[in-house]
Formats: sequence, C-alpha cells, structure tokens
Amino acid sequence: MTLQTPLTRLLGTRYPIIQGGMSWASSNAALALAVSRAGGLGVIAAGPMYPEALRAAIRAVRAGTEAPYAVNIPLYNKRAQEHMDIALAEGVPVIIASQGGPQKHIGRACDAGAKWLQVIASPEHAAKAEAAGVDAVIAVGLEAGGHPGPDEVGLQVLLRAVVRRVSVPVVAAGGIADGAGIAAALCLGAAGAQLGTRFLLTTEAGVCDAYKDAVLAAGVADTTLVGRGRSPVRMLRNAFARDYLAAEHGGDQAMLETLFAGSSLKQAAFDGDVQGGKVEAGQSAGLIDSLQPAGAVVEQLVAQTREALRRAALLAE
Amino acid sequence: MTLQTPLTRLLGTRYPIIQGGMSWASSNAALALAVSRAGGLGVIAAGPMYPEALRAAIRAVRAGTEAPYAVNIPLYNKRAQEHMDIALAEGVPVIIASQGGPQKHIGRACDAGAKWLQVIASPEHAAKAEAAGVDAVIAVGLEAGGHPGPDEVGLQVLLRAVVRRVSVPVVAAGGIADGAGIAAALCLGAAGAQLGTRFLLTTEAGVCDAYKDAVLAAGVADTTLVGRGRSPVRMLRNAFARDYLAAEHGGDQAMLETLFAGSSLKQAAFDGDVQGGKVEAGQSAGLIDSLQPAGAVVEQLVAQTREALRRAALLAE
Repeated sequence: MTLQTPLTRLLGTRYPIIQGGMSWASSNAALALAVSRAGGLGVIAAGPMYPEALRAAIRAVRAGTEAPYAVNIPLYNKRAQEHMDIALAEGVPVIIASQGGPQKHIGRACDAGAKWLQVIASPEHAAKAEAAGVDAVIAVGLEAGGHPGPDEVGLQVLLRAVVRRVSVPVVAAGGIADGAGIAAALCLGAAGAQLGTRFLLTTEAGVCDAYKDAVLAAGVADTTLVGRGRSPVRMLRNAFARDYLAAEHGGDQAMLETLFAGSSLKQAAFDGDVQGGKVEAGQSAGLIDSLQPAGAVVEQLVAQTREALRRAALLAE
Repeated sequence: MTLQTPLTRLLGTRYPIIQGGMSWASSNAALALAVSRAGGLGVIAAGPMYPEALRAAIRAVRAGTEAPYAVNIPLYNKRAQEHMDIALAEGVPVIIASQGGPQKHIGRACDAGAKWLQVIASPEHAAKAEAAGVDAVIAVGLEAGGHPGPDEVGLQVLLRAVVRRVSVPVVAAGGIADGAGIAAALCLGAAGAQLGTRFLLTTEAGVCDAYKDAVLAAGVADTTLVGRGRSPVRMLRNAFARDYLAAEHGGDQAMLETLFAGSSLKQAAFDGDVQGGKVEAGQSAGLIDSLQPAGAVVEQLVAQTREALRRAALLAE
C-alpha cells in the first residue's frame, strides 16, 4: 500500500507531505529531522539563522537520516545569498524558495543537483516560476499562517487555478491539518500537501510552550491578517492584532508602521509574549487539539489520507 | 454507477449538488427547474420576490418536474414570514434558510413535511442549528460570492471544523466550481456541495448579460469583500468596490454608509451597471470560462466528480 504521487517521485520521499518552513519553529535540525525520518520532507527554515547555525543544522539532519530534506530560503532576506551558498555547498537535496523569484539562483541549484520548489500565491506567479525552470510549486491559500500572499484567495480556488495553469507538480498549502485535507488536495489535482501549523504543534518545533499553548487554544476564527496592503501576516487575534486592526480604521499610516514594527514573531516565539508579539499561525489551528511528536503526526496523516480517499471513492462506485 | 450520499438520501435527489440561492439570479423558475430536472437541487431565491411571483415560480417548478427543489428564504428579510407561509402552503419539499436562526419557523416546516437546510458560516452556528432540529447545514467558506459570513474562514478549514462538530449532513459551499472541488468536499467529510457562481454563469440565470460577462472575465483574485465589520459582501473589484475600499482607509463611517447604500446588486443584475453596482460573485469566478445551460453543468459536474474520486483513490491502493 503506497501513497505515491509525482511529488514523491520528484523528491524521493515516502509520502507526499512537506513540513512548512516556519522561521523560528523550524530553524534547527530537530523538527526537520523528525519529519524526514518519518517519510515526509523535513524543512530547515534558513530565514532567521546565522550562517554557522544553518550549516550545523544541515549537517545534523544529514547525519541523522538518509532521507531527503529541504532548506527554505526566503529570497528577500539580506542573508539569502549566503544561505544559498551554504545550502548548495552542503549538497542539500531540495531548496524551497519563497518571497522572491527564482531567476538569480536556480541555475546554480540545478548545477548542484538540488530540486527547486517555489512558494507562490497566484496562478500568474506559478506560471512565471514554471517558465524559470522550477521543479514544483507550492500554492499557498489565504488560510495559511505567516505570509499567505496579498490576494486572499482560498486554497480550494487557488489550487484549482494553479493546477490548471502549470504542468509541474503542485503542492497544496494553507488550511490543511489532517489527512482528510490532504486527500481533498489530491482530489483538487495537487501532488502533495505542505502543513505548517500542524507541525508547529509538535514537541520538536522550536518555539516556546506559551506560543504552542496559545495556538492550541485557538478556534478556526481566532486568526486574522494584519498588514493588508503591505505584507499581510496571518497570526492569532491577540492584544497586538486588536490594536493594529483598530488603528487601520483610523487611517494613520505612520502609526500603523510604528505598531507593526513594534511587534515581532521572535517576541512571541522566544520570549513567550503571546499578547504583544506576532503569534503566526494558520486557520487550521482551530482543527488541532494536541501536541505530538512530529513523526507520529506524519504517520497519522498518512493513515487518515488513505482512509479519506477510500471512503470518498466508495461514493463513486 | 451512483453518487449517493447522506444528502441525496435526505433530499431524494439523484446527485449531491445544490444550486446556491442567488437573489435575482435565481428568483424565478427557470434556473431551479433546469437544475432539479438534471438531478441536482434547484433553488428559488425568495429574497427579492413579491409574494405572487414566488407562488408562481414554485408552481412553475412543480409543474415542470417531479424532482425535489427548494426555496431559499433569508430570515432577516421583511417578507420572510410571508415567504415562509407561501412556501409551506405550496408544499415546497425543502426550505433553505439563511441569515437568521431557524427557531421561529422550523416547527411549522417540520409539520408541513419540509426538510430544513440551514446556511451557516461557523462551527458554533452549525451546532446551534443542529440543536434547533435542522436536517442539514450548508457551511459557507469565505470564497463564496454574496454573503460569506464575517469570520473569513476558508472552506478547507471551516468544512472540517463543522463536520467534526455536528452529526447532521454538511454541505460545502464557497469556492467550488467543478467536480474536483466536489470530490475534495466529499473527502473533507461533506455530504454534498452547493455551487453559486457556477450556476450564475448559465443561460437560465436571471441576471443581464453584462453581469455574466463581467463575472466570466474575472480571475481568482478579482473579487473582494466590501463591508467588513458590518455585513461583508463578496463582489467583483469594480469602480464601486475600489471607491469603497479606498474610503475604508479614511475611516469615515458615515461616508462608508453612504457609499455602501448607494450601490446595489439590482443595479448590476438588472441595469447592467457592472461598475457602479454590486456584482456579487465568488472567487471561483476565476475557474469558470463558459456560459452553459444549467442541466449540462450538472451532468459535467457529476462526471468530473466521479473522475476525480477515482483518480485520487488510485493513489491509496
């Protein structure tokens, strides 16, 4: 019994499941290693990492498993070039690029034998990425935590539009927290799914307990977008979010700027300030009720996906 | 070869497909009749109708088919009581209630032998509706045209949360325009799907050609929500929407009120003013490329749904 798709064939993973790159939560080896060992694609988020820490995390994952893994590199980041140099020098098998076009680096990655997955949030960007030679795209719906893209298109619609637009494998992201969600994505034409919030709520994720507890307690309507019109961030509706959204109605751009800059993800992830910091999380927080080891999450997702596909197929017999 | 679910067994329809009640677009017999004849559940939208017109439409559908059909009654409407009286007196087999709780009328509907489907946009409202005795709920994601509910939760997440919360059949609505979308909803645990925008773009829908053309031309990112904080409406990004959204940043509530009241759905649907009126449509507008007869749409949806379920099931073998 398998769960093989064009994505597993491309990546060499057992399952079509990718752990979302999540800044602090996955800027270390622990989470990525656990996911890759269990048969998914573990992802080290380079974003906030110093070069030596990134190199050490890559080596730790490689030492811990022969399974494929990835490094997520936000291309707007001031250290993107350095992150890319390290990832390619270390022979990382998969690069996941976000927040910037692939053109500048993809040739080098290809020469180094790395697969390139590009995070996109519109059919137009998917087509551009395909033209630039990426191996697959990750389509992020507005349900996603962190940076879901400015157009606010739900996964159900975005995924169909992207699948119709490109020929490379499409990975569904945003709003998926269980195997039924993965099965639905496969029905919509995806070759796999990327889950962020589900892997945030694991023992290995590198954010403090107060952060995890706040996300665990959230319902499906307890996240919001802050920063519409600049770079929208999906996070819990905490004290900061309420202040920001209230100020949006006042229309004072300078004040919004100050408020936005005065709150950070790090503040919540490290210091445990879940009211004043940015507690990034997706709407699927409302579907998750327990903190589990990441390996157990992968196994559970696979079993649920198979069950959902079998159940739905009976309807068409 | 069937496509039977708890929804088809409840309603007595051939297929688990409901045509969304869409104000002017389905405030007549033509669209509902075509959908019910083809095996879906056609819906007459009572909202904007005068009592005699509603009675005539119900009789025309009943005269044209023995298949089940429904009347959609927005309960906040000033004519809701009159609409309900007519629907029950005429022996309408299915009531679809929206925008208001079922308590006041559901006992009477039950006595009259009508099934009651309640439109909801949160797990909490789904639980309340179930407690009040409804036969099924229709869960509307933020992708939906018209009134998707204030919480802005994507269908992928909302549907899972509602399915886990209630025992009655759940119908998925918002963002579905093809059989892959229906198959995905079934994987997520839905017993069927309601499609609005797909049935808006049919020859039978009662809005003018300029309206249909504008929706046909839209991409997935070409709708927006206006009226956040009051009663959000999803519509095309036209001249009115741009003015309204710009004014939101000014924070002048009185001006917003005036702008909002100065534009209507009727203006777009009847007068063809697709820049100044409210062109209500869902994000799935971007997935629809052709105007077709509603019966052909139903047949196509069924074939696509079966195909998507079969294709996805192969992955789990």
